[in-house]
Amino acid sequence: MAAWFRRNPRRPETPRLRPRADDLITTRVDLHEFAPPLLEFLGRAAYVELTLFENLSRAISSAPTVGAKATIGGAAEITLARHRALIEEIRRAGGDPAAAMEPFIRPVDQFEREVHGADWYEVLVTCYLTTGFLDEFFAKLASGLDERDASRIAAIFTGPSGEPLLARELESAIEANPRLASRLAMWGRRLVGDTMLVARSTLHFGPNHRSDEERIEPVFTELIAAHTRRMDALGLTA
Amino acid sequence: MAAWFRRNPRRPETPRLRPRADDLITTRVDLHEFAPPLLEFLGRAAYVELTLFENLSRAISSAPTVGAKATIGGAAEITLARHRALIEEIRRAGGDPAAAMEPFIRPVDQFEREVHGADWYEVLVTCYLTTGFLDEFFAKLASGLDERDASRIAAIFTGPSGEPLLARELESAIEANPRLASRLAMWGRRLVGDTMLVARSTLHFGPNHRSDEERIEPVFTELIAAHTRRMDALGLTA
Repeated sequence: MAAWFRRNPRRPETPRLRPRADDLITTRVDLHEFAPPLLEFLGRAAYVELTLFENLSRAISSAPTVGAKATIGGAAEITLARHRALIEEIRRAGGDPAAAMEPFIRPVDQFEREVHGADWYEVLVTCYLTTGFLDEFFAKLASGLDERDASRIAAIFTGPSGEPLLARELESAIEANPRLASRLAMWGRRLVGDTMLVARSTLHFGPNHRSDEERIEPVFTELIAAHTRRMDALGLTA
Repeated sequence: MAAWFRRNPRRPETPRLRPRADDLITTRVDLHEFAPPLLEFLGRAAYVELTLFENLSRAISSAPTVGAKATIGGAAEITLARHRALIEEIRRAGGDPAAAMEPFIRPVDQFEREVHGADWYEVLVTCYLTTGFLDEFFAKLASGLDERDASRIAAIFTGPSGEPLLARELESAIEANPRLASRLAMWGRRLVGDTMLVARSTLHFGPNHRSDEERIEPVFTELIAAHTRRMDALGLTA
């Protein structure tokens, strides 16, 4: 098991204010050679975004207030738009959306069961952390696709984000009920392992897995640093 | 009880090819004086669209194939965009979205329970028929709002519709399993009553309810004719 797959990673000393565009450039080279074929990338990402959207829908349905429903609706809209844009990209690449997503149903559904959450608060933490992690991962990976497609597809995962909306909902929930903090911190730490596995399974390694894993370690170090920042933003310890 | 509120209306002899824009003009005058104040209209419509979206989300989660999920996703995107546009209109009118929706939670949730559907097929019929009916009703009613807002808000409910996507899914479900037809026809007939009630409760009647109801009857006759066309499109008898 590679070093990046620690359940309790030491907090990486990443400069907090480094702009996101820099992150993309830093890791472009690292992921390029591990990027899957276009339709495989699109099919998996489309099904992952659909699953993230379904989680947000559950958070809307079980929200305790109509204000929370409306706020989470803003995040759901962004995730659904990403799924829809990926479906369009599958068609553009000459693929059939259902056939392209089919191979990823089983592993992504398995992931969804692992990160399901026991109540509304955990569901919302799952939405907040897994959406942030996976969108950032897909953006990095997309910039390693064929030059013709890379920037257009990477742009699907950047742009307006639902993250601040979800963070605001969670912050006020924790403020109203401070005893939630330790449970949600534990839940957030649990999520990172499963989320990394679903991201990692996207990559195509060569015959020398071990050295490939070492080479991609900095990418995951960055993703974990971002995860830690998301936890910090809620006042939770990663 | 007014004549338009029959569970089994005689099929009205509406010319089938009359363009939708004509419908809007025909009934503009009839609904104008019954239109609720702007924020009341927006709050109710926003919560109704949110509920229609939640129903579509349930249809996505319980869809039997990933192809059906992707198709229904297209319809969900449109309904969610309508809800989001109405939230923006509430803000534009100086209202608070949660406060504007609050009074309609109980009656609309009650409606949702009535039209819930026992399985995926019924849920999808509910999405198809109630979304079509209510969007058309809101478009008619919006064109009776203050002149400054009328066309902009009416446009939220027209434009691209998810109806053909849902019709296609239902058609192929019925084709694959013709025994569904009679059950879904019965379900579709049941829905129209509850859907008319939720639409009707939007209107502000004067002291003479009975004559007001007679005056709006043509509007509901048109809406029922459109409902019948939606049933016909699936080969179901309304």
